[in-house]
Amino acid sequence: MFLKLLGTAAGGGVPQWNCACTLCSVSRIDPQRIGPRLQTQAAVSADNKRWFLINASPDLRLQIESNPQLCPVPHLGQRNTPIAGIVLTSADLDQVLGLLLLREFQPLTIYATSLIRRVLQANSFFDMLTRVSNQLTWVDISPEKPFSLDGVTCTPFALAGSLPHYAKDFPSQTPGEASLGLIFDTPDTRIAYTPSVPEITPQLLKFYETSDVIFVDGTFWTNSELTRTHAGTPLARAIGHVPISGDDGTIALLSGITRPRKYYTHINNTNPILDPQSPEAEFVRKHGWELGHDGWQLS
Amino acid sequence: MFLKLLGTAAGGGVPQWNCACTLCSVSRIDPQRIGPRLQTQAAVSADNKRWFLINASPDLRLQIESNPQLCPVPHLGQRNTPIAGIVLTSADLDQVLGLLLLREFQPLTIYATSLIRRVLQANSFFDMLTRVSNQLTWVDISPEKPFSLDGVTCTPFALAGSLPHYAKDFPSQTPGEASLGLIFDTPDTRIAYTPSVPEITPQLLKFYETSDVIFVDGTFWTNSELTRTHAGTPLARAIGHVPISGDDGTIALLSGITRPRKYYTHINNTNPILDPQSPEAEFVRKHGWELGHDGWQLS
Repeated sequence: MFLKLLGTAAGGGVPQWNCACTLCSVSRIDPQRIGPRLQTQAAVSADNKRWFLINASPDLRLQIESNPQLCPVPHLGQRNTPIAGIVLTSADLDQVLGLLLLREFQPLTIYATSLIRRVLQANSFFDMLTRVSNQLTWVDISPEKPFSLDGVTCTPFALAGSLPHYAKDFPSQTPGEASLGLIFDTPDTRIAYTPSVPEITPQLLKFYETSDVIFVDGTFWTNSELTRTHAGTPLARAIGHVPISGDDGTIALLSGITRPRKYYTHINNTNPILDPQSPEAEFVRKHGWELGHDGWQLS
Repeated sequence: MFLKLLGTAAGGGVPQWNCACTLCSVSRIDPQRIGPRLQTQAAVSADNKRWFLINASPDLRLQIESNPQLCPVPHLGQRNTPIAGIVLTSADLDQVLGLLLLREFQPLTIYATSLIRRVLQANSFFDMLTRVSNQLTWVDISPEKPFSLDGVTCTPFALAGSLPHYAKDFPSQTPGEASLGLIFDTPDTRIAYTPSVPEITPQLLKFYETSDVIFVDGTFWTNSELTRTHAGTPLARAIGHVPISGDDGTIALLSGITRPRKYYTHINNTNPILDPQSPEAEFVRKHGWELGHDGWQLS
């Protein structure tokens, strides 16, 4: 299995356009200390030729152009792409806006739950992906039903998360279809990909314990981190993110998971672990975790 | 007046994610010869402190971070921005998707016709810009009614363009509100900004002739350019772009406009003028035109 991280920041990226906090400011003036991060994006492939995007970040244009494996090649014609499909884990804008960058009359296959598909289709912007016949193919996926990504078996599983704010009143929601985790399997490797983790469940622990590598929600260090930067903003847990620290955080709750290599991804610009010299980053390392970084590859 | 071009390519940028044409391929392997271009974006300011974005491209996150004048500064607090507002000239995705990158609970003012506002509001994605009170302020603008951008007078005028494909069935359209050109005036400078030009009218010629600098639709060299790369795609004129070449192209039709400096912007990845060594680029230069480039500044 080939797997790449093309972005490891939460929505907004690092630095964030309107943020002058110490972390964002240092990442602007001293990117060697706090590296800029694009918004969370991954890609997986069985053969290093046909790639499947895991979600579609708003930074996707830059993420494709920065990775030659994802760029078209002249000997296959004027218009072509090694991107064979996109798997969606939620309808969050920082996970789906990149779909609208993949217009240009190119046939696309999107794997999503029917709920996520319907939420997106309710936005007429998506009509730009259906301008020529056979341009867009939706494949409905469901929790616990594995499907093949040309040699990588992908098993989605339900997370407790709800639809994002913009779709909160969406009619006829199907339980378990708003937010997914993904397991990627080849005969010799299992990877768990969960950039959003609303709660740690026994099922999730079982998936983590049977994996070789896990990617876990590293959005926030504490529950109140966002609220402290901007009054009126929500708590971490209220928007579906178990924080890293504390007795009920992911370091503590996953301390018994010892088999896989453990990586945080989807790291928000407010999270002190972004600074490798911080006590929080030291704490993370001491407890056996690493930070995913843009350009990370499964080796 | 301060004016910057932050992007000068049409939708998709140069190179385009799924395009392996000669121009895109050379821009990937020899960017010194054919420079990469971000999607069309401009910004204007009277004082070099408060900036107004002209449209909001999908590349806006990178365009802000690449321009220190548009970044927040620590002494103004944790969250701040020099971006005082955004003026929209159409509802095209490559001109509006960047609005959805400006979430993060930051107050924003958007200047748009009521038609464009209603088209965008019909997409629930825009609810992400109204999560806290006073987050989003829409200012309705109309053709021929000047308004002030903190010292720069902006006069919108109607173009013949229609709403983009995704909004083609939008109810209750108001004529002249789907597509605008903009005139920017300070006491000593006039600039015409028209990245999309569906037809050359006497009014447009008058605006151009009274300007110091004009930015003109440089999307396509010929009418059939896009069709030839991908069967089933539309002609240039059918999607609101007068091509550059030919007796009825912009070079010929604006040959009598001699006062302003003349720049092409919104250049599609299919347009041969992107290669400075092409006969088409030579032809453009010989007729007194320049190509806008990312980073161009009014001097």
